Amino acid sequence: MTRLFNDPDDFAEEMIEGFAAASARWVRPVTGGVVRATRGAEPTVAVVIGGGSGHYPAFGGLVGPGLAHGAAMGNLFASPSAHQVHTVATAAHEGRGVLLSFGNYAGDVLHFGQAQERMRAAGIDCRTVLVTDDVWSAPKDELERRRGIAGDLVVFKIAGAAAEAGHDLDDVERLARLANDRTRSSGVAFGGCTLPGADEPLFDVPAGRMAVGLGIHGEPGIDEVDIPTAAGLAEMFVTKLLDERPAGVDLAGARVVPILNGLGNVKYEELFVVYRTIHTLLTDAGVEIVSPEVGEFCTSFDMAGASLTLLWLDDELEQLWLAPCDTPAFRRGEVSGRRAVEDAELTALDDAHEIGAASDASRAAAAVISRAFAAVAAMLDAHADELGRIDRIAGDGDHGIGMQRGSRAADQAAAGAAGSAAGAQTTLQHAGDAWADKGGGTSGAIWGEMLVALGAAVGDEDAVTADAVGAGVAAMKDAVMSFGKAKPGDKTMIDAIVPFSDDLTERLAGGDTLIDAWSHAAGVATAAAEATSNLTARLGRARSHGDRSLGTPDPGAVSFALVAHTVLDVLKKED
Amino acid sequence: MTRLFNDPDDFAEEMIEGFAAASARWVRPVTGGVVRATRGAEPTVAVVIGGGSGHYPAFGGLVGPGLAHGAAMGNLFASPSAHQVHTVATAAHEGRGVLLSFGNYAGDVLHFGQAQERMRAAGIDCRTVLVTDDVWSAPKDELERRRGIAGDLVVFKIAGAAAEAGHDLDDVERLARLANDRTRSSGVAFGGCTLPGADEPLFDVPAGRMAVGLGIHGEPGIDEVDIPTAAGLAEMFVTKLLDERPAGVDLAGARVVPILNGLGNVKYEELFVVYRTIHTLLTDAGVEIVSPEVGEFCTSFDMAGASLTLLWLDDELEQLWLAPCDTPAFRRGEVSGRRAVEDAELTALDDAHEIGAASDASRAAAAVISRAFAAVAAMLDAHADELGRIDRIAGDGDHGIGMQRGSRAADQAAAGAAGSAAGAQTTLQHAGDAWADKGGGTSGAIWGEMLVALGAAVGDEDAVTADAVGAGVAAMKDAVMSFGKAKPGDKTMIDAIVPFSDDLTERLAGGDTLIDAWSHAAGVATAAAEATSNLTARLGRARSHGDRSLGTPDPGAVSFALVAHTVLDVLKKED
Repeated sequence: MTRLFNDPDDFAEEMIEGFAAASARWVRPVTGGVVRATRGAEPTVAVVIGGGSGHYPAFGGLVGPGLAHGAAMGNLFASPSAHQVHTVATAAHEGRGVLLSFGNYAGDVLHFGQAQERMRAAGIDCRTVLVTDDVWSAPKDELERRRGIAGDLVVFKIAGAAAEAGHDLDDVERLARLANDRTRSSGVAFGGCTLPGADEPLFDVPAGRMAVGLGIHGEPGIDEVDIPTAAGLAEMFVTKLLDERPAGVDLAGARVVPILNGLGNVKYEELFVVYRTIHTLLTDAGVEIVSPEVGEFCTSFDMAGASLTLLWLDDELEQLWLAPCDTPAFRRGEVSGRRAVEDAELTALDDAHEIGAASDASRAAAAVISRAFAAVAAMLDAHADELGRIDRIAGDGDHGIGMQRGSRAADQAAAGAAGSAAGAQTTLQHAGDAWADKGGGTSGAIWGEMLVALGAAVGDEDAVTADAVGAGVAAMKDAVMSFGKAKPGDKTMIDAIVPFSDDLTERLAGGDTLIDAWSHAAGVATAAAEATSNLTARLGRARSHGDRSLGTPDPGAVSFALVAHTVLDVLKKED
Repeated sequence: MTRLFNDPDDFAEEMIEGFAAASARWVRPVTGGVVRATRGAEPTVAVVIGGGSGHYPAFGGLVGPGLAHGAAMGNLFASPSAHQVHTVATAAHEGRGVLLSFGNYAGDVLHFGQAQERMRAAGIDCRTVLVTDDVWSAPKDELERRRGIAGDLVVFKIAGAAAEAGHDLDDVERLARLANDRTRSSGVAFGGCTLPGADEPLFDVPAGRMAVGLGIHGEPGIDEVDIPTAAGLAEMFVTKLLDERPAGVDLAGARVVPILNGLGNVKYEELFVVYRTIHTLLTDAGVEIVSPEVGEFCTSFDMAGASLTLLWLDDELEQLWLAPCDTPAFRRGEVSGRRAVEDAELTALDDAHEIGAASDASRAAAAVISRAFAAVAAMLDAHADELGRIDRIAGDGDHGIGMQRGSRAADQAAAGAAGSAAGAQTTLQHAGDAWADKGGGTSGAIWGEMLVALGAAVGDEDAVTADAVGAGVAAMKDAVMSFGKAKPGDKTMIDAIVPFSDDLTERLAGGDTLIDAWSHAAGVATAAAEATSNLTARLGRARSHGDRSLGTPDPGAVSFALVAHTVLDVLKKED
């Protein structure tokens, strides 16, 4: 909803004032909108765009060199008057004629049409190209009845680039019309915006549902479906737009610009997840993707919705689409003197995980370590659901899947390193990095740090003796302690690893074998993990998390104890 | 909320894949994030940024020439691991050292710190500059404890520009630190985002309330207040940030870059309305504003919130802030060969309302027309509230204020034109344009068109006879009919003007004087306006608007009848 305004009646006027103040590098305010603040050396045809306000960057945000010369900016979702269009077009005119371009809406058609008559009456050559990209707003055999949505950007950019290149009005009009003929968009919405001062949104879509083909002012859609996955939406978009491609376009070898547009409340991260599948589907269809755009190009305040636009290029359109432009909200340029980075320059990447020299003894230890990771990964695979269940009681439920993914990745990395004759440290470092990368969350980061710390303690040269293991486990404990802010008694994994490490160190100092010491310490860890469910001790956390966590142990402590027992089994088998 | 995803656990990874696919002109994916896809002729210091995902364009969107060399992109709102930072920094390194820069959060400090140690262990000079711009997150005497929010953009841009300019690592570090020292931000929030797959938003703010100083991941704010007006928020921002300006900065003559940032759901139009007052307040404080930015630079998915950042420039910082850059989401460049447009080139504007030649008879009619506008404006002033009340029952309640504003502007324009010896047509055209510009909404546009049509019918030369008036009213009727889709019987203003015009034409043809004919037609219009409240006829509209409209006439029809009677009074007085 729109929350920030003064008098709602003054909203559009104040918005335009603020926009012009913030964008003085590009635009100057005139009655009815803005025109460019700069001119080039030679006069060009003037491209004048416009429509109601509320669609930023459409329309004022698209005024500047290489794009529009002026924008008539009406009240919220209301066409500018003929007089406003006329004053903007008159100010923008550089003596070579004016092209008016705007989305196909009745009010805009009426007012821009009257402005065109006034321009012509004053002896200025003035033409109009309507944008009609919305495939849902009329059938294929009535293309001229379709509405304009995010395809606005395409037609305006092509027309502006053509004007900038010095074309005459005939040619600018021809190219703008060609751009519109080769542009198609499909939109969906999940909910409408609430205008300044209004009590209710312009329209509603039931929760969990998605309106298909709904317009940017809430014009009715043609269907309503359950909200699909991101990949599902990508497929809906691409299937429809490939079917709707302009007559005569062959998919094989076609070059296309995809523009994935957010209407306001569907944000960049979601758009990128959707784009990922769009990119794959278009590529799979044999289409060459040129210079895609993902962002907010034609919004409707904070309306929850998105649209995909495809511009089917030919050589002329491609050159104009890629030409430089500089406006408040859409810029395209090149910083000179750049070259593509070469693969060889990125090989430093591999160095980060280079396998260095190692002693035979350390390599032998690495092989045991690798087998331990395999056992731990198998164990966590089996227990992932149960760990998730425990975590859902007090936390966010991702502990099980995080440990499963992390240990699986660590297993693969350890096997790869050990198989490449890595020593113990290198093997543990590869495994730790992989666990942190893939495990995610705090537990992934902590396990990554623990394994890297263990590796640093045992090295790639020395044999991994019982004492080295004890020192390594102590280093793991230190890594956990320094990682977060938790202390013993806070009922976290620390409550298991601290007594485990202390007991192991004490038993080894007392002369126990590694297996005996580890066995005893693992029992201590289990008891300690169980104690994290102690009712009294958990009361503090329970207060903030609700009663459900009472009696449930900390999942991090539990999984640590499980790992300790699994490693014990491996040690016994190796013995 | 976040609606579009596949498996929520894969969201960040798929987002990064989609981002890299859409942004291949600028970035290449590597383990843990992205690095630039191009290199310049000479190697530079590498600026590596990063943090959790969910803040686009931070962080991947800021990688490219003139800005960052690489971005480590963690999971949603979670720091990248040390390994991820390390691989990105290693790939980005061009042989002249690495500057790590990121917001001051515990997880990021830990992981970037560990990555820095790894870089140094590999013999690469690596430094760190934390961003600490959020004035609400710690007091003035603990600047180093503050969090980083939208000030990220400033520090990254300055560091990237310094690297691009060829500075060595000492200097890039110094300048990044200087940028952070001279950057302050203040943020507010109205509500939190809901992450993919989550059932609830990260945090809530009660309806109508605003959290002050709340962090971009929902960290607690320091106060909660009623949502102010846009101007009120601007004043809160500016007052706080002027008070928080860096030690030693004199307001008088200071140059400052304001960056007004939307967190996701507070949209461009609202930001511009807020910026309007920020611009005025800063200017009034004696500060020179340089190259402002209004948009989305550091978001939190679709979180409803905004922040203002001020960068207090010195000569070095100004040059670096204005230097060109080219990244997926932030570009700055100049299209060469531009010059500022001169005032004289915009004078064509005035020509649009040039006063042409007119006969004495037409000028005399213009004077009467001008007096009629004065009477109509006074009448609508008196009836604005009542018309608004009627409109609120079935419509949006703006009819009264729209008619008031429109007629007032038309009155002024008509008086100006008639006072400058304009004829009847020119006077009506000025008045109609002013009504459409200022009245707004459909009624403003319709009255504008009606007046322009009436003007075209009577001209600037001929005397305005009774028959000319009749023909002019018929032209007004045609203008209304062609304007929208409404037809007689739809219970709109058409139901009043059609019988009015038809009756007037018939009476004039029958030999009535203008006053007699107009008087009769005005009575017909009143009856017709009243009939728009007919219960049976309104049932169709009532079904979609609720019962309240039953028995209430259409406000457009009522105001037309009122105008008809007011003009009758003027005609009688002139007679």
